[in-house]
Amino acid sequence: MPKVVVLPGDGIGPEVTAAAVEVLREVAPDVTLEEQAIGGGAYDAHGDPLPQRTRDAVQDADAVLLGTVGGAQGSPWNALPRHLRPESGLLALRKALGCYANLRPVRVQPGLEHLSPLKAELARGVDILIVRELLGGLYFDGDRRIEGSVAYNTMRYTTAEVERVAKVAFWAAEQRKGRVTSVDKANVLEVSELWRRDVQALRDREYRSIHLNHEYVDSVAMLIVSQPSRYDVIVTENLFGDILSDLAAVIPGSLGLMPSASLGDGPGLFEPIHGSAPDIAGQGVANPAAAIMSAAMLLRHGLKRSDAANQVDRAVALALREQPTRDLGGKADTKAFTHAVLSAMGSP
Amino acid sequence: MPKVVVLPGDGIGPEVTAAAVEVLREVAPDVTLEEQAIGGGAYDAHGDPLPQRTRDAVQDADAVLLGTVGGAQGSPWNALPRHLRPESGLLALRKALGCYANLRPVRVQPGLEHLSPLKAELARGVDILIVRELLGGLYFDGDRRIEGSVAYNTMRYTTAEVERVAKVAFWAAEQRKGRVTSVDKANVLEVSELWRRDVQALRDREYRSIHLNHEYVDSVAMLIVSQPSRYDVIVTENLFGDILSDLAAVIPGSLGLMPSASLGDGPGLFEPIHGSAPDIAGQGVANPAAAIMSAAMLLRHGLKRSDAANQVDRAVALALREQPTRDLGGKADTKAFTHAVLSAMGSP
Ligand SMILES: CC(C)[C@H](C(=O)O)[C@@H](O)C(=O)O
Ligand SMILES: CC(C)[C@H](C(=O)O)[C@@H](O)C(=O)O
Repeated sequence: MPKVVVLPGDGIGPEVTAAAVEVLREVAPDVTLEEQAIGGGAYDAHGDPLPQRTRDAVQDADAVLLGTVGGAQGSPWNALPRHLRPESGLLALRKALGCYANLRPVRVQPGLEHLSPLKAELARGVDILIVRELLGGLYFDGDRRIEGSVAYNTMRYTTAEVERVAKVAFWAAEQRKGRVTSVDKANVLEVSELWRRDVQALRDREYRSIHLNHEYVDSVAMLIVSQPSRYDVIVTENLFGDILSDLAAVIPGSLGLMPSASLGDGPGLFEPIHGSAPDIAGQGVANPAAAIMSAAMLLRHGLKRSDAANQVDRAVALALREQPTRDLGGKADTKAFTHAVLSAMGSP
Repeated sequence: MPKVVVLPGDGIGPEVTAAAVEVLREVAPDVTLEEQAIGGGAYDAHGDPLPQRTRDAVQDADAVLLGTVGGAQGSPWNALPRHLRPESGLLALRKALGCYANLRPVRVQPGLEHLSPLKAELARGVDILIVRELLGGLYFDGDRRIEGSVAYNTMRYTTAEVERVAKVAFWAAEQRKGRVTSVDKANVLEVSELWRRDVQALRDREYRSIHLNHEYVDSVAMLIVSQPSRYDVIVTENLFGDILSDLAAVIPGSLGLMPSASLGDGPGLFEPIHGSAPDIAGQGVANPAAAIMSAAMLLRHGLKRSDAANQVDRAVALALREQPTRDLGGKADTKAFTHAVLSAMGSP
């Protein structure tokens, strides 16, 4: 029996995760669910944003479903030493699981173009998959410090790190339109020069059917907004991916619609990309669509159950049209939306 | 007599710079103009993208007017060793002039909202000034290398570097709405922690009338698109500024409308933010508005001639409405647009 570890986290995390769990129980009743702590709440309870008990539990899971971590701007959590802050729990979890490839699909659902900040004719049909490297670059390197009035971080990549994430992008493009855009700043950074060289070499060696091009990160930031339809799969390093994937996520009009999957050699990690939204936490109004869609990605990539995943995705699309939540200009609260998804799954 | 060094550069640089020079001659006939080489063309002619002769000329200039540098994707310039590429000429120039603060105004001209990729109601009234740190961070630090299959770059900032650019942002905000957003990734990077601490301390010490807040770069990438009107002045480090200023530049609908000023302790550097557009170079169709607006910034910040600067800005706004260029959906070529600006200046 597959085991899924559920980490509700902080803010609206518990509410949206509860909705996703309801859906999971419905389509995959044989799956064992085990809840554990992460983030600020875990620090408060156990003095550690990623307690040992959570580390142990995820190690033998088949997949991990995560809510959100972090507090409001003025939260005392933000004044803790860096390694004790909620975000450090998330970074440590990604590292512990070896999740090096973060997949963020950005799709404008037909009929929901009006939600986009872009003109409808630009938003229509947008379907991008951003593959973000998740364990390298400026995020994790050891050489990082503040020494009085000077601070350093190191951006570092190896060929092995570049190749393993590029493989995920090429593999994904094979199931899509076969086009990959690799994003770097090779006109300025040596790390980008290595990145570009290695991605191109891998394509030339093993993925000749893929159409690969290279673009600069500043240019992509513009083109994602002004011509989003030109992209199929985008692959890039950790920090560029952080910025570009959040940027692309505004195109569908609500962060509440954006799931993600982080894959590696062990169990995958599935989470909505929105934050913990402390301002609306506990009110039962958060949009759980992204969490439920993350559960669908968990079914697809974590448990290899595509049929169940498709069933959930279809139900979410229907529910979004019939019971939109407040962030989408509708009236449904978390419960009502979840109920709409569950009943859409019941219908043939 | 003030001296302005003109560096036309590559691609459409010479065409748009020629237009800006015509305008400068008209409003500031006493200024001495001296042309020098930079970029790929300078490499071809002198073996160096920033030849010694150019270095000497800019040192005793009052201001520098730059066109654009760089070749097309497949250009042989891009295969040169890094320090000989066209972009290195630009980076070396910024460094030689000590231009640490790059000012990029992003303004949607009334009546031109329809050009924006954003919905008109979001684009209307947008008026952001991005202040990008231009000499630090990943761009210039010595510790950068490729060693076989691993590459490094270093992001480094000192308190002195943070403070001098933050001062420019606070000073600019004092002439505007008095609000500064400092952008970092302090939840992950030590460098951002220093940045945030130093910007806040400077505000608390010397700029108490300024309203300062701090936001994460990924979040700003979203909010610049979904709620652009929330920003007045944005200040950030070099690479974040590169990405965010290009991103914000799409809001007005054409890069052809975006000037920039780079200020420091010596002569300032004034340049359009668009690239060298090799695909349309030499055809006489490039939009020179950004180059002409950069000349206006040169008059204002470089020569302290605000009246002349305002006169040019007003003429450009008028010409944009009466003789729009092709990138704006109009018909005017470079000459016709420049002529429209010149005659708008003649009219009272
Ligand atoms: C919370 C933060 C550390 C994290 C990141 O930058 O990776 C977040 O922005 C994300 O994208 O998941
Ligand atoms: C050409 C490149 C080196 C430059 C930069 O990144 O600074 C450009 O993108 C810019 O923003 O002026």
